[in-house]
Amino acid sequence: MFDPGLEAIIDLALAEDIGTGDITTQVTVPPATRATGVILAKAEGVISGMTVAGAVFARVDPSVTFQQSVADGESVTAGTTLGHVAGPARSLLAAERTALNLLQRLSGVATSTARHVAAVAGTNARIVDTRKTTPGLRTLEKAAVRHGGGHNHRFGLADGILIKDNHLAALGAPGAPDRVARAVRHARANAPHTLRIEVEVTTLAELDEALAAEADVALLDNMDVAQMREAVVRTAGRAVLEASGGITLDRLRAIAETGVDLISVGALTHSAPALDISLELVLDPTP
Amino acid sequence: MFDPGLEAIIDLALAEDIGTGDITTQVTVPPATRATGVILAKAEGVISGMTVAGAVFARVDPSVTFQQSVADGESVTAGTTLGHVAGPARSLLAAERTALNLLQRLSGVATSTARHVAAVAGTNARIVDTRKTTPGLRTLEKAAVRHGGGHNHRFGLADGILIKDNHLAALGAPGAPDRVARAVRHARANAPHTLRIEVEVTTLAELDEALAAEADVALLDNMDVAQMREAVVRTAGRAVLEASGGITLDRLRAIAETGVDLISVGALTHSAPALDISLELVLDPTP
Amino acid sequence: MFDPGLEAIIDLALAEDIGTGDITTQVTVPPATRATGVILAKAEGVISGMTVAGAVFARVDPSVTFQQSVADGESVTAGTTLGHVAGPARSLLAAERTALNLLQRLSGVATSTARHVAAVAGTNARIVDTRKTTPGLRTLEKAAVRHGGGHNHRFGLADGILIKDNHLAALGAPGAPDRVARAVRHARANAPHTLRIEVEVTTLAELDEALAAEADVALLDNMDVAQMREAVVRTAGRAVLEASGGITLDRLRAIAETGVDLISVGALTHSAPALDISLELVLDPTP
Amino acid sequence: MFDPGLEAIIDLALAEDIGTGDITTQVTVPPATRATGVILAKAEGVISGMTVAGAVFARVDPSVTFQQSVADGESVTAGTTLGHVAGPARSLLAAERTALNLLQRLSGVATSTARHVAAVAGTNARIVDTRKTTPGLRTLEKAAVRHGGGHNHRFGLADGILIKDNHLAALGAPGAPDRVARAVRHARANAPHTLRIEVEVTTLAELDEALAAEADVALLDNMDVAQMREAVVRTAGRAVLEASGGITLDRLRAIAETGVDLISVGALTHSAPALDISLELVLDPTP
Amino acid sequence: MFDPGLEAIIDLALAEDIGTGDITTQVTVPPATRATGVILAKAEGVISGMTVAGAVFARVDPSVTFQQSVADGESVTAGTTLGHVAGPARSLLAAERTALNLLQRLSGVATSTARHVAAVAGTNARIVDTRKTTPGLRTLEKAAVRHGGGHNHRFGLADGILIKDNHLAALGAPGAPDRVARAVRHARANAPHTLRIEVEVTTLAELDEALAAEADVALLDNMDVAQMREAVVRTAGRAVLEASGGITLDRLRAIAETGVDLISVGALTHSAPALDISLELVLDPTP
Amino acid sequence: MFDPGLEAIIDLALAEDIGTGDITTQVTVPPATRATGVILAKAEGVISGMTVAGAVFARVDPSVTFQQSVADGESVTAGTTLGHVAGPARSLLAAERTALNLLQRLSGVATSTARHVAAVAGTNARIVDTRKTTPGLRTLEKAAVRHGGGHNHRFGLADGILIKDNHLAALGAPGAPDRVARAVRHARANAPHTLRIEVEVTTLAELDEALAAEADVALLDNMDVAQMREAVVRTAGRAVLEASGGITLDRLRAIAETGVDLISVGALTHSAPALDISLELVLDPTP
Repeated sequence: MFDPGLEAIIDLALAEDIGTGDITTQVTVPPATRATGVILAKAEGVISGMTVAGAVFARVDPSVTFQQSVADGESVTAGTTLGHVAGPARSLLAAERTALNLLQRLSGVATSTARHVAAVAGTNARIVDTRKTTPGLRTLEKAAVRHGGGHNHRFGLADGILIKDNHLAALGAPGAPDRVARAVRHARANAPHTLRIEVEVTTLAELDEALAAEADVALLDNMDVAQMREAVVRTAGRAVLEASGGITLDRLRAIAETGVDLISVGALTHSAPALDISLELVLDPTP
Repeated sequence: MFDPGLEAIIDLALAEDIGTGDITTQVTVPPATRATGVILAKAEGVISGMTVAGAVFARVDPSVTFQQSVADGESVTAGTTLGHVAGPARSLLAAERTALNLLQRLSGVATSTARHVAAVAGTNARIVDTRKTTPGLRTLEKAAVRHGGGHNHRFGLADGILIKDNHLAALGAPGAPDRVARAVRHARANAPHTLRIEVEVTTLAELDEALAAEADVALLDNMDVAQMREAVVRTAGRAVLEASGGITLDRLRAIAETGVDLISVGALTHSAPALDISLELVLDPTP
Repeated sequence: MFDPGLEAIIDLALAEDIGTGDITTQVTVPPATRATGVILAKAEGVISGMTVAGAVFARVDPSVTFQQSVADGESVTAGTTLGHVAGPARSLLAAERTALNLLQRLSGVATSTARHVAAVAGTNARIVDTRKTTPGLRTLEKAAVRHGGGHNHRFGLADGILIKDNHLAALGAPGAPDRVARAVRHARANAPHTLRIEVEVTTLAELDEALAAEADVALLDNMDVAQMREAVVRTAGRAVLEASGGITLDRLRAIAETGVDLISVGALTHSAPALDISLELVLDPTP
Repeated sequence: MFDPGLEAIIDLALAEDIGTGDITTQVTVPPATRATGVILAKAEGVISGMTVAGAVFARVDPSVTFQQSVADGESVTAGTTLGHVAGPARSLLAAERTALNLLQRLSGVATSTARHVAAVAGTNARIVDTRKTTPGLRTLEKAAVRHGGGHNHRFGLADGILIKDNHLAALGAPGAPDRVARAVRHARANAPHTLRIEVEVTTLAELDEALAAEADVALLDNMDVAQMREAVVRTAGRAVLEASGGITLDRLRAIAETGVDLISVGALTHSAPALDISLELVLDPTP
Repeated sequence: MFDPGLEAIIDLALAEDIGTGDITTQVTVPPATRATGVILAKAEGVISGMTVAGAVFARVDPSVTFQQSVADGESVTAGTTLGHVAGPARSLLAAERTALNLLQRLSGVATSTARHVAAVAGTNARIVDTRKTTPGLRTLEKAAVRHGGGHNHRFGLADGILIKDNHLAALGAPGAPDRVARAVRHARANAPHTLRIEVEVTTLAELDEALAAEADVALLDNMDVAQMREAVVRTAGRAVLEASGGITLDRLRAIAETGVDLISVGALTHSAPALDISLELVLDPTP
Repeated sequence: MFDPGLEAIIDLALAEDIGTGDITTQVTVPPATRATGVILAKAEGVISGMTVAGAVFARVDPSVTFQQSVADGESVTAGTTLGHVAGPARSLLAAERTALNLLQRLSGVATSTARHVAAVAGTNARIVDTRKTTPGLRTLEKAAVRHGGGHNHRFGLADGILIKDNHLAALGAPGAPDRVARAVRHARANAPHTLRIEVEVTTLAELDEALAAEADVALLDNMDVAQMREAVVRTAGRAVLEASGGITLDRLRAIAETGVDLISVGALTHSAPALDISLELVLDPTP
């Protein structure tokens, strides 16, 4: 389906890899040579990006067939066959690296997300992503987070209201009377009715202000576990609570057990190592 | 200087983050509010992407001033001030995340590269990158590798000849007589004279073939240290030798000490965690 | 500030008007001729698009000076001077039509909106727009609605959840038990926490379902005034209520007085006549 | 057939509507759900934009079938079925609004044009459009004018010569001897031989000058009916005459009866209300 | 001034030349090195493309100064200084080839045109170009033709009506009664009034038909000089006459002397050799 | 196969030719008319661009069938049928000129190259192209050179190292001790290992320096035949030698016989006259 961002990043990636042409292939592989390939997971993880990889092959050459054995979101073990490709050898060689670069990175994000999700299993907390995504890959990485079992925070500045420290500063220095509450009310008066109002709080006093102003969501910024627990008690369901800031896998369970609703983790997208995936091609020998 | 790829990725990244507009800022920060900000390293590492970050701010609003205190390629400690920005608060808030996402990722690549380079200090081996880069960021990540002290392999399929297993397959099954040598000679006869001929070899017998055919560079694919040492002896300076395949930081020193010329490491770009860098903004309070 | 959609529509509009060049001007106006111009409202209304018009002149020729006397959102009478331009005559003639076409259309939208807003003055109802905007001008027309005193509904499919009849159909035929409630709960479970859940209801029974499922907003589709009044009573503040469907200026007051919170009007953008605005140029006679 | 402007406006319109994805549909409609739809005129008018709407659906998803029952240019009554669509429900929901926005606007232009054409039936006058079109939609709206029975004036600054007041100013103040004639002769000497020379005249004296200089077309700017009648007499077929300026539907017949050849009407494109057209979708219930 | 086609071709040309970066310069010229350069004609000819060359340097680096000593359209001798550039050496080296490639080609077209124009000096015939231009350079090459003293035929299919053999075929086989006249009348009835009607004729009988139908221009296709002379006599000023088809420099004078108005020459743009122009750079030695 | 540069130049060329539409065809050829055409060589030469021409027709209308009788790289005589097209007449007429403009130019380059290659037949010298290509057509013209039997030099600044006079100047004035050698060593230390190092030399002393520094390729700039012969002797196979500078067809044989390896000729691409090729269309008469 129409996805101009996907078309743009695929074209950009192919252009930077193929440039004026695959010179090695031109001087070693005859144009008529055909090949088949198998896409293999070389490590265990959660797959994301198979449909994207298919789109890469289709963009390079619509005559390539791409058959997908594993769906985005499935967990696989090392050695699992993810899919097959077949077509002109030159086309497969031209698409190979770009398809794999996308598939490996997105599967890396999905796999990292799945680990975070597993760590909070049985609690009410959702793992959510941030805007700390790879430039150009925002939508794809947000999908990878979902494939890993996580949930998405807003996609960008236009589809969510999150009043941060910097915005609050426009209404007075920290501690200025009623600063948080004024910001929330101002936002509600002006924002589209389709968006919830989320506000960042750094103290329990600010949280009280946010609740009084009927903020929909409060982001608990860099609070410790004891503070979060108290925040949950005070809030008593009147707002959604998001834990955020310096959250690592080893603290995750304790945070989730405070009762917060959401835990946002930038590392899901900015520091996930790629999942090892290969494409084994077999070229027909030249007759 | 003109860099259409840089313009394209900045536009794509800004478009996906800003979308139809920064709604939070619109409903909380008056248009006339100004702000200043300081870019801070929150961890030690090697910086890359400062000029790119400057280009992001300039693209969002040419009236923003961006002052750079640390050059790309410099090592910094946690707490180092990297630069300052000043301008309309709305512009800084709109550019912030995209600038940081690029700067953090590229500095992550530079920092990871520097660690690999340090591990081979005193040997003749160069650390080189691969084509396993982030889609859309190829040129920027290649620069980050240089900023970290590494060297670049080819930028794409057009500026280097690297005959791999798949290309060899077009000339016969593995072990087919003279397959490597035929490929090298075929490439030389057809390729531009500006490019060296590099060929992948998986055995010492194939290396002998490559040397006999006067390949310029041989890529030693997944060899163990003993094989590499023997390869260096046999080659005796007649070709450049590149070690490649499954190379991790802990094996790096031993590989370098075999005497190979180049060690290529995909993880420099596909699995480097982001370097923690923040932008602390101070908005002028509304008068 | 960065606005890729604005750049795109300005380039598209200039390209279709200027094409391979303004042949009339080339054969009648010498290149060195300079001109000044005054932008005049020829009818009363609310202005929107002055900054956009300025961007058009700047895109055609950065040396043109554009001075704005009236801000977007101001009401003017016929004869009001909106601004002045000065620069090379050829540049002004090339930009004139595109700048005016945008300014007239957007001011038409703002003026129409202001009329609708005036009709509900003193009630609690907000006038909101729809997605029935001119293709390519969505963001600009949404701003024009704000300039006219209206509020924006969602900007597109990504920044708001509005479950309509068609979506409900996927969960069963109209009247299927609990169809509305199931849809709302399903959306809440899967949607980003940043977005409110709005659902379209066509009967009061469906409204009850929506309220039971804690929908944030209910869209009252094509209800008559009596039904709306009853809907307000039943809702009792538990959800935001939006009146929608076939709303015309003459019914507006009565609808607003039912107590609904929002009234959405497609005609604000799809059928607003252009406001008559002219650019009177004075060319320096050729010396 | 290739139409880069059409591709550009469709992509722009889809991008602004779909953005990062149709979140409502994603959380309520399963990916495998299919749907069918019927496009219905809800008011009487002349249709334009059916092929454009088809292109929108094809751009969103080439697997959607679009079947057209009414051709562009046909008159329909309220309730007429214009066509049918069928395909994946998610694709139809994503394309729906953009397709309708284009179809409604273009049919609005065609319908308005048809009303103007009807008003001059039986005279020799042609109704022609202007450059006062919606930015980005020039070519489509010009086609809509033809569908409504009107004719096109030039498409832009490159495909016609129309010497206006502003151009004349470069040759001297109004009344400067022979200003109109000099402009016409200068244009003829320099313009491509493929273009006719049209010149704007505001007085009968200027018309005489234009005729003496053998202008091909004279635009009678803001003349009253008596002046136009006299202009027709004086011209005696030596030039084409175009009436222009503040022309409204109720004056149209009288103007046409003066014998002018062309009457240009900006309102055809800048102020035509959209024609009411709906797409009624039926989603298959989830099995 | 705004010229999207110019921006597009410059970006395309720079992208294909610079690609991922000027590697030679990066490894030999320090970033701080500055340089100056002089643009020199190495052969006599007519210059076209100086402003275009300036735009190339500005696109690569806005800090480069470009000073133009010779205007487009001037004749120069070998050794003439055309202009000077100064700025960062890396920027000048990156822009050099693209700027020169455009300047040499366009000056080649201007020079070739000037030779053709000189050959018809003293006659009434204008030399005009065709649509046989370099893909992507249409507008620039049409300007070069004017710089060389020629005139432009239509710029493309949209700004002129030229009914050729192929179009006539739709109305019947050659010789079908009144085929030419019917085509002309049909065109007049449907075409915008801004365009003249030109029709291709291959015989004097067809010319008679064209004249009877009041065609504005007749293209005499592949006629010999005697036929053209007769055509001029028969036409007696009732239409503009264009000679076309296989016209070479040595036949030009004789053709012009027949009295035809226009002679169109494809070779002006499709076969003009480049004019030899160089850029002599002087780099400041590294301190 | 994916070729973004090709897509870009085809779109640019079609847009400049078709613009807002083929008005002549619209007013003379009914939409349902079909046509067939034959592509004919009107002169002898080497064909290049047939696949490109096919891509033009496919871009205009995917329903057009394009059948290729002669492959790129084949020599043909005048009168040879190169291929056939069939489809809607309007589509063929819209694509015709752009397809031919590309095919004629590229075949002109291939034909000129073939003449140069023939002139050195039996020697060891290869004819190579330069970066003096038509802006926007670099990759296509480089392919045409190969079709004519030539070889390619680097495609742009990124895929080859060629140290010229200007780069040397950064290391000292001509004659500065060891300037050439220092440049070569500096390049080797910093350049990717995939690229050979080529350096321009203007004297035999500089050649000696280049050889001592183990340059891979030496470009002999504007040397006479005697100097070249001596250069070959001195080099004795230690480097590849390229003759360059003011090389014309009549000097070519003598240069080749000196024993140089490569002769680069800018005129292959910057001054090749188009090959005369026509498309003869036959439109079905209107029923």
